[in-house]
Amino acid sequence: MDPNVKKKALRLITYGLYVATSRNGDEFAAGTINWVSQSSFAPALIMAGIKVDSRLQAVIASSRVFAIHIVGKEQKEFATTFFKGADRQGNKLTGYQFEEGSSGAPILIDAPAWFECRVVDQIVRGDHTIYVGEVIDAGVRGESEPLTLRDTGFFYGG
Amino acid sequence: MDPNVKKKALRLITYGLYVATSRNGDEFAAGTINWVSQSSFAPALIMAGIKVDSRLQAVIASSRVFAIHIVGKEQKEFATTFFKGADRQGNKLTGYQFEEGSSGAPILIDAPAWFECRVVDQIVRGDHTIYVGEVIDAGVRGESEPLTLRDTGFFYGG
Repeated sequence: MDPNVKKKALRLITYGLYVATSRNGDEFAAGTINWVSQSSFAPALIMAGIKVDSRLQAVIASSRVFAIHIVGKEQKEFATTFFKGADRQGNKLTGYQFEEGSSGAPILIDAPAWFECRVVDQIVRGDHTIYVGEVIDAGVRGESEPLTLRDTGFFYGG
Repeated sequence: MDPNVKKKALRLITYGLYVATSRNGDEFAAGTINWVSQSSFAPALIMAGIKVDSRLQAVIASSRVFAIHIVGKEQKEFATTFFKGADRQGNKLTGYQFEEGSSGAPILIDAPAWFECRVVDQIVRGDHTIYVGEVIDAGVRGESEPLTLRDTGFFYGG
């Protein structure tokens, strides 16, 4: 298998861009991710690939909950801000206001929509852990088309 | 949790549209799917949600391999044809010519790109099984932007 062909083929998978958050007591974590998909209707399950040894992965591993925020078409900066993770100051996370979700995970109020998940399964293999979470709460704050990874010109895949 | 809000939020996840195939001896299977994402760079892993009790799921469960084809922007009909599964006639699957891939799975030559996976893990939970496959071969046949689920006006999520 030619690694360049593999990379080219895998980069044709279509992705959105999401801000994931989690919290375990005083430990807050956040990150921008794109390896996200639903995996069941009933119960509603989400699968997400989270970088091994990231702070986000460590906090999800201990809290067993995470929230995923949809990023709106015009919110590239909101997404890229969380490349640097979570810096909590009062009710702000890396500069963005949050509320506490049902799961305890911080819910960023700038996101047009979000859902919270309780981890029910995981697969530890390769350089990302797959977390499978059951959707326990969700919210929609506005009408917004989602930002896609293709819109940003970034790649995370291959 | 309001089920309509949950549905609205989950439908803001961005998806492509893919034709998945598998083969176990004389048994061929195919289906149009969208719950697909990479889940690791090294090794290159793919996670895919496949409907429980579908023929595609049964054939993947026995063969432990699958191929995923990218669908080009102008190939909506190619994708929708496989809603009805696989009907093999000679070297055609539901009317589309295929070759045998490294894994034995049929590779549809109309797709602009494809990759083949060997199953390394699965999670059986809910109405779809999550298969995690290591990418063992890949090909790119042309330059084509991928079709997205949003392009089609279909929804499969919520």
